[in-house]
Amino acid sequence: MKKLQIGIIGAGRIGKIHAESIQTRIPDACVNTISDPYDDDLDITAEKFAIKNVSRDYEEIIENPQIDAVVICSPTDTHSKIAMEAARLKKHIFCEKPVDLSLEKIEETIRIVKKNKVKMQVGFNRRFDHNFKRVKEYIKMGRAGYVHTLKIISRDPCPPPAEYIGKSGGIFSDMTIHDFDMAIFLLGKNIEQVFSRGEVLIDPEIGKAGDYDTAMTMLRFKNGTLAMIENSRKASYGYDQRIEVFGSNGYIFADNDTLTRIQIGDEKGIHNEKPLHFFLERYMDSFIEEMKQFVFAVNNDKPVPVSVEEGLMSAILAKAAKESAMENKPVFIDL
Amino acid sequence: MKKLQIGIIGAGRIGKIHAESIQTRIPDACVNTISDPYDDDLDITAEKFAIKNVSRDYEEIIENPQIDAVVICSPTDTHSKIAMEAARLKKHIFCEKPVDLSLEKIEETIRIVKKNKVKMQVGFNRRFDHNFKRVKEYIKMGRAGYVHTLKIISRDPCPPPAEYIGKSGGIFSDMTIHDFDMAIFLLGKNIEQVFSRGEVLIDPEIGKAGDYDTAMTMLRFKNGTLAMIENSRKASYGYDQRIEVFGSNGYIFADNDTLTRIQIGDEKGIHNEKPLHFFLERYMDSFIEEMKQFVFAVNNDKPVPVSVEEGLMSAILAKAAKESAMENKPVFIDL
Amino acid sequence: MKKLQIGIIGAGRIGKIHAESIQTRIPDACVNTISDPYDDDLDITAEKFAIKNVSRDYEEIIENPQIDAVVICSPTDTHSKIAMEAARLKKHIFCEKPVDLSLEKIEETIRIVKKNKVKMQVGFNRRFDHNFKRVKEYIKMGRAGYVHTLKIISRDPCPPPAEYIGKSGGIFSDMTIHDFDMAIFLLGKNIEQVFSRGEVLIDPEIGKAGDYDTAMTMLRFKNGTLAMIENSRKASYGYDQRIEVFGSNGYIFADNDTLTRIQIGDEKGIHNEKPLHFFLERYMDSFIEEMKQFVFAVNNDKPVPVSVEEGLMSAILAKAAKESAMENKPVFIDL
Amino acid sequence: MKKLQIGIIGAGRIGKIHAESIQTRIPDACVNTISDPYDDDLDITAEKFAIKNVSRDYEEIIENPQIDAVVICSPTDTHSKIAMEAARLKKHIFCEKPVDLSLEKIEETIRIVKKNKVKMQVGFNRRFDHNFKRVKEYIKMGRAGYVHTLKIISRDPCPPPAEYIGKSGGIFSDMTIHDFDMAIFLLGKNIEQVFSRGEVLIDPEIGKAGDYDTAMTMLRFKNGTLAMIENSRKASYGYDQRIEVFGSNGYIFADNDTLTRIQIGDEKGIHNEKPLHFFLERYMDSFIEEMKQFVFAVNNDKPVPVSVEEGLMSAILAKAAKESAMENKPVFIDL
Repeated sequence: MKKLQIGIIGAGRIGKIHAESIQTRIPDACVNTISDPYDDDLDITAEKFAIKNVSRDYEEIIENPQIDAVVICSPTDTHSKIAMEAARLKKHIFCEKPVDLSLEKIEETIRIVKKNKVKMQVGFNRRFDHNFKRVKEYIKMGRAGYVHTLKIISRDPCPPPAEYIGKSGGIFSDMTIHDFDMAIFLLGKNIEQVFSRGEVLIDPEIGKAGDYDTAMTMLRFKNGTLAMIENSRKASYGYDQRIEVFGSNGYIFADNDTLTRIQIGDEKGIHNEKPLHFFLERYMDSFIEEMKQFVFAVNNDKPVPVSVEEGLMSAILAKAAKESAMENKPVFIDL
Repeated sequence: MKKLQIGIIGAGRIGKIHAESIQTRIPDACVNTISDPYDDDLDITAEKFAIKNVSRDYEEIIENPQIDAVVICSPTDTHSKIAMEAARLKKHIFCEKPVDLSLEKIEETIRIVKKNKVKMQVGFNRRFDHNFKRVKEYIKMGRAGYVHTLKIISRDPCPPPAEYIGKSGGIFSDMTIHDFDMAIFLLGKNIEQVFSRGEVLIDPEIGKAGDYDTAMTMLRFKNGTLAMIENSRKASYGYDQRIEVFGSNGYIFADNDTLTRIQIGDEKGIHNEKPLHFFLERYMDSFIEEMKQFVFAVNNDKPVPVSVEEGLMSAILAKAAKESAMENKPVFIDL
Repeated sequence: MKKLQIGIIGAGRIGKIHAESIQTRIPDACVNTISDPYDDDLDITAEKFAIKNVSRDYEEIIENPQIDAVVICSPTDTHSKIAMEAARLKKHIFCEKPVDLSLEKIEETIRIVKKNKVKMQVGFNRRFDHNFKRVKEYIKMGRAGYVHTLKIISRDPCPPPAEYIGKSGGIFSDMTIHDFDMAIFLLGKNIEQVFSRGEVLIDPEIGKAGDYDTAMTMLRFKNGTLAMIENSRKASYGYDQRIEVFGSNGYIFADNDTLTRIQIGDEKGIHNEKPLHFFLERYMDSFIEEMKQFVFAVNNDKPVPVSVEEGLMSAILAKAAKESAMENKPVFIDL
Repeated sequence: MKKLQIGIIGAGRIGKIHAESIQTRIPDACVNTISDPYDDDLDITAEKFAIKNVSRDYEEIIENPQIDAVVICSPTDTHSKIAMEAARLKKHIFCEKPVDLSLEKIEETIRIVKKNKVKMQVGFNRRFDHNFKRVKEYIKMGRAGYVHTLKIISRDPCPPPAEYIGKSGGIFSDMTIHDFDMAIFLLGKNIEQVFSRGEVLIDPEIGKAGDYDTAMTMLRFKNGTLAMIENSRKASYGYDQRIEVFGSNGYIFADNDTLTRIQIGDEKGIHNEKPLHFFLERYMDSFIEEMKQFVFAVNNDKPVPVSVEEGLMSAILAKAAKESAMENKPVFIDL
């Protein structure tokens, strides 16, 4: 089979991850071109991953008739624009999350993508995590039974730079959005109510930038299932990513991954390893897997595993959460 | 030292527990009399625990000049009445929780108790649990640092009989009240907001009785700390009583107790024991300990470890939670 | 029922434990007299546990016609002598382990006990530990299947005083003997071969006293089951008492007990509690339980749960282990 | 840098693993040729891993001047012969374990390798396991202190075919040899005594083939450290690979890896996942890592991480263990 020809737009951290995955782990695809308007090391990156072509201009990628699909890893505020341009030129699209901070732009993107009959997958990589996809399988198998509650803990090891905070759209759009997608992934989209509280407990600078660093969100699903999401920008012991599903048959709990299974006992106690440091360590395999499935979907004309419509849903939840936190009231939604 | 002479009012399950504790584990006190208007086995109970006197009428206890203190284990709707009568007759009081479903009656009880200068302790036994009192010690030692979030999971192994539900005051007054007291015990009383959701997911009969069987509550403390309490009337795997405190230095987590530390590995997996079945198994030591401390406080004229004023606080929280759940809005309080 | 009248011989640490158990936890028995030739605090002990009579001379106990049974907690080298005298005077006997360091004296004791038709139980309390008795139940239920291997880890938190070492009979008679009894308890007495190595790795003083502080023993049962016992006089993290049974169906593993179930996560790692400090903490319930069962056996004329014949078996194993370690060869036995 | 040109001799399971590692994970090397005299799917294998040349005859590999190094994955009885031929033709050698069942042939191989100044690495992949190499690091850091005991548990999920047993050299040469190498890797080569017991508890056919299926081995190091190795050909719950190092400062324990960190609680208990199924799953990363380090050592003229001299040591231990088990006596060695 001819390899799927991919253009990567944006050569930052996540762009490099996708480049490496495609070049070394996905035999059915190859990176034709990588583009970045600013990156000084673009040639080095291209050489490192054996990518033949580089460009300063993403338009060279979307206009290249040899390229079948684009992977959009540029800054968030360019995602929807590039996605729409690419769709019009019949490129299939893998787009990092969030698709856009504006719901209207996401909706417009959906229209253009549909009209041009291209595939578009959103980068909610956690769905492909070995632990969480197994949680979903167990839910389907009925191990939890009728689900009564869902709890998601998502704590980062350290806050992003203050300058990033301003552009991020806030904790709910930047961080909780992954957990909203996880709730949809695990239990479906029938969420009807969002109640969130945001606090500034870690860094006053984050408060000055108009954001929260600590948040709790309670969701109610239409069937009565309740979900709780807890977010923190700073956990001293590392990246804390745990999920518990509880229902009529029992619970399913996904604990944190660690680098080793080593335990040490000494006079101070019994010590275990901290969780894997951050998302690059914890979710590396999921980045590879989401790209594999994107390539498979395009090559075999199958539906992508995370649609842009689902990207819209978590954006709606993020917006509702922000409104709830700012006005201190439950907000109703219909996905 | 002369032993503290105690009268136990109510010979049900919890009355028997306190009788046994006092007679076999607390050398500085003895049960002088046990009363119950209906219990057919009262004589057997008395003989079993070597209690000299029995009565059908609690008034014989509170009027007995040889008795120093009463332990009120009668039905909830008689607690405040008996407590006030006992206080007027200068008996010290240990009263099971909740003191009353009516905030006014609790306030009246407080006034009478103060006026008569007797001690009154409320039976929030979980404060004396080996795990949870250690959690508090660690918080004080700064192991969590500035506390950002608190999570309490409290799930029963099975719902109470439907007839009990009606008299219980509802899940928030009957079940969550323990968790409200735990939040106050661990982090203090500065709670300013309650948001609760209640659902009927386990047994429609509970819904018909006007109650919920599943609930989530989010608390906000005045300093920004957020707390989440999850309650369920039925966990297939047993009594689930876990607490996690998270803050600037890390987390403190109290897991469930089990009867043994045995693990079995077979072709189906690696199996560990379920939590201790229910509150009698899990909290037996805490029932003994709360009574020891009550006896010590009375014998040495020290403050009791759980005051009736604190009993009022959790009752206020329970009422606010019910209002929040029924009206689907955050409710503000000032303890 | 008339309470079983017990005389306790020896008011040291273990004597006090049995006194407290009998007086506060075993309604069917009471301590009639406690004797100790040297203990300056004997009166205080007697008052604390409400024991009516004290004596300097154990003969007053065994000659007292009102006393039904004796609990021998005196120094090891007096055990068999006192036991035989008590047996001749028709007292039932609970004797701390080891019965004697001389196999001949144990055999003589067995003869006298049998001839006088009294009951004699040996204080192998670990059989009554909640974890280990459950391990045996699971073995019987077939959870391990045909047992291939048994591993016992027994490490003390700190070595005994050097002066004790000299009188103890050595690590195999003093420490491993508990593990030999555990092997017999769990898998039966069909042990045919002992291979032991002893080392001095902790304290040269122990070596000077002619003993080892670290030991490994391999047992072979007649059916091919292999067992490994590891002993250390000093584990920095506390009293380590673990057992693993492995067989055709899987494994059964008993982990250490801890005081609480608290876990702490901080920037250094995830920390759990150390095991309970030492045998008093870990095995307190088993001391009570063994005494309850002794009282029950005497009161109801049933066999005692740990016979003196079994005490002989572990003494034989201890002697064989010592010989194996000193001569560096496997030693054959027939229990 | 020019890529190291490698010839793989033997296209069985382990040959394919090394082929995939080199072709997809090690940029500094490539598989020039793969040979196998019998494999019907050799062309398919070559195509799958993009290997340009195939051969029926390993001599075409060792005689090919373009090839720098060989990876010997042929049957054990051909290892030393091929290694010596390759060494004479100045090829660097990676050889699967064991180098040979005959100590003399290993010694001869060592001489030829030294004389021809080529590098030879032996495939003790477990040294590269993330858990075990971390255990070694912790030992070096002093986390265990002076090491008193080492315990290695190594149990397979299922026995090999009976026909394999006959050619394997027996459980000590085939299975325990990995654990002997691990003991040397962790604590050094100063082992002076081996005592082993072998039993047939799983499959009488294994006994008929003259081998054991269950074994325990006790090692004594010259400094007094004692080690225990337990082997079983069949653990119902999967591949059990655990190590515990205990010393003056405490213990270091490496538990089994699992595919996910999921825990399920239901009415039967709390269930965790079984260990990764077998060596391919558990040690896949270590196969890649050992090959990376071999390529690095050759390309940079550095010592290989596992020398053939070390391969000889574990072979000596395996032979001693077999002798000990058959003659039921400790066997002395000097590595």
